[in-house]
Amino acid sequence: MKKKITILGATGSIGRSTLDLVERSPDRFEIVALTAGRNVEELAKAALRTNARVAVIADPQRLKALEVLLDGSGCRAAAGTEALIEAAAGDSNLVMAAIVGCAGLLPTMAAVEAGQTVALANKEALVTAGALMIEAAQRSGATLLPVDSEHNAIFQCLAGSRLEGVARLILTASGGPFRGASEKHLREATPAQAVAHPKWSMGAKISVDSATLMNKGLELIEAHHLFGLPPEKIDIVVHPQSVVHSLVEFIDGSLLAQLGSADMRIPISYALGWPERIPTPAARLNLAQLARLDFEAPDPERFPALRLAREALESGGGASVVLNAANEVAVEMFLAGRIGFTEIASIVEDALENFAAPAPKNIADVMELDRETRTRVAASLKASCA
Amino acid sequence: MKKKITILGATGSIGRSTLDLVERSPDRFEIVALTAGRNVEELAKAALRTNARVAVIADPQRLKALEVLLDGSGCRAAAGTEALIEAAAGDSNLVMAAIVGCAGLLPTMAAVEAGQTVALANKEALVTAGALMIEAAQRSGATLLPVDSEHNAIFQCLAGSRLEGVARLILTASGGPFRGASEKHLREATPAQAVAHPKWSMGAKISVDSATLMNKGLELIEAHHLFGLPPEKIDIVVHPQSVVHSLVEFIDGSLLAQLGSADMRIPISYALGWPERIPTPAARLNLAQLARLDFEAPDPERFPALRLAREALESGGGASVVLNAANEVAVEMFLAGRIGFTEIASIVEDALENFAAPAPKNIADVMELDRETRTRVAASLKASCA
Repeated sequence: MKKKITILGATGSIGRSTLDLVERSPDRFEIVALTAGRNVEELAKAALRTNARVAVIADPQRLKALEVLLDGSGCRAAAGTEALIEAAAGDSNLVMAAIVGCAGLLPTMAAVEAGQTVALANKEALVTAGALMIEAAQRSGATLLPVDSEHNAIFQCLAGSRLEGVARLILTASGGPFRGASEKHLREATPAQAVAHPKWSMGAKISVDSATLMNKGLELIEAHHLFGLPPEKIDIVVHPQSVVHSLVEFIDGSLLAQLGSADMRIPISYALGWPERIPTPAARLNLAQLARLDFEAPDPERFPALRLAREALESGGGASVVLNAANEVAVEMFLAGRIGFTEIASIVEDALENFAAPAPKNIADVMELDRETRTRVAASLKASCA
Repeated sequence: MKKKITILGATGSIGRSTLDLVERSPDRFEIVALTAGRNVEELAKAALRTNARVAVIADPQRLKALEVLLDGSGCRAAAGTEALIEAAAGDSNLVMAAIVGCAGLLPTMAAVEAGQTVALANKEALVTAGALMIEAAQRSGATLLPVDSEHNAIFQCLAGSRLEGVARLILTASGGPFRGASEKHLREATPAQAVAHPKWSMGAKISVDSATLMNKGLELIEAHHLFGLPPEKIDIVVHPQSVVHSLVEFIDGSLLAQLGSADMRIPISYALGWPERIPTPAARLNLAQLARLDFEAPDPERFPALRLAREALESGGGASVVLNAANEVAVEMFLAGRIGFTEIASIVEDALENFAAPAPKNIADVMELDRETRTRVAASLKASCA
């Protein structure tokens, strides 16, 4: 029997790679529903190509265009948040939750609450609403399969293990483009330098997060929720080649590591095929050719983001929402040339210190706190720049 | 309920480490039977300390001495091959098969035929009688848990995986003390240089095998039998730090690796605790402190042992028995200063070319072919040296 797949966010980078893998194995998978934010053309094309039953566009104003494109195909067109939620909770064997940003929270939560097997590619889901998502999954019996390369690596290393046997998780960080940079260099770093990631080709926001190491801070928060380990049992090691995607240390002193080329189709395929492996066209690693792998401790002085993420996690409540929202605003400001690179962390630290953040009770609370934080950070920046 | 443990070869290096771990967890394990070759004193001490029910000494002439030492303890003394076999096949939850050399074949096979869970630390069992052992395990329902650090690493990486998902196994080799050595250096290498292994402290024979890479050839044969993959799907990569103990590549391009300090208590504990992890006092790896891991392809010209092992495996029959026996004789000759380092491989190659080796039908056949090969290799060496 074929696995029925729903892709939330089918026109983004993860969604496209998922479609690529699904379409390579038509005997194994069939598409039930595809969703997209605004890209009606690409959504319709993918829906027609894969014989999807439903295609959902988030923006209701584009429903008409979608209907025209799907006319006569047998694929139903739908639009808006309710339709997204319906697709997320509807009949399928696996939901790829790949909508970027807070827009993905409600549909992802809907899939989790419906007890689906959810491939989690939306970072915000666990960073801002981790406790809620995990509680919902426990209630509904949903299975969460992490797609992020680091968490997917840990998930692979944990396969079949009981948590009592785990001593700690070790997330690897590339160290970003400023790994060996001086404090002075960091203060003067430009957006162009910050987005030049050495290993993965990514969007500007996430590249800056990689340069500040905030991406690793956010991943630490995600790992805590996903794997149920306290922050002190989650370590970060800098590994510039980004070949080892993460590791698990067990109580016997043994470590398992997952390695692979920098191709997101590997973790995506793991989630799609789970619990079985499916072939991918990803480049094979050749260890002898790679020749060497380096590791070093992250520098907490030059890269305070890791400490901030730990602090947010430890203070609990909505602190992780504040961390994430303040960071997004600060990164935007940096990319716009309005603040310096090292100010990103200072702005996040200020926000964590100054904004009370009660624990969100539901996704609406999370989204409200997120909005509120963005407004306040932007306002305080405007005030200080004025 | 405590796990009942039998240790075949309790006074050797693996046996002692097993006892160390068992005695650290008296709430988890109890010793049923201990066996040793000749070391009556150490065997008796261990049996008394652990309240073993039976202690078996292989050498029947030492039974009297053992009886005296165990007198009044409630631990039964026994001796000889039949008693070893009885201990191997007797009531227990795990048999650690750690007798060194061909002396371990019959007791190990007895444990496998009795359907025991067998922790395999006797290399000869799989190198010389791999097909027989695996067939016997399939008939009896025995579970084989590899203790060798490389095979244990692969076993850990495979946990929960199906063979269809595996693309290849990658055994790591330290490269030994002559990794970068010239042909001339190899020809003139002395036994003292050859036994100076850079990472593991081992006996002279196995250190020389590590210097010729024959140990990796033998492990390739073991891996083939243990994991059921053809030789072309088992690769070797040289990794001088010996931190990554081996890897598995899956069909999706993902690799899992097991890492750890050079402490055999890690793989032993994995077998003892399986399917659960138990704590060990082994030193923890610190990747940032290690700083770098290197990998390179093995040189087939300077180290022909890998090719010879593949050829033995491919030609089937008793060729692996011949390979192993000829290598043992050649290494003895080298250690005695009678032949040069590079002659070890030549002698093995000659033996593989010249000795017909029908497939052994049972352990007696294996032992007979082993003896015969040793005699013939020794005789031909005597002739050529005369």
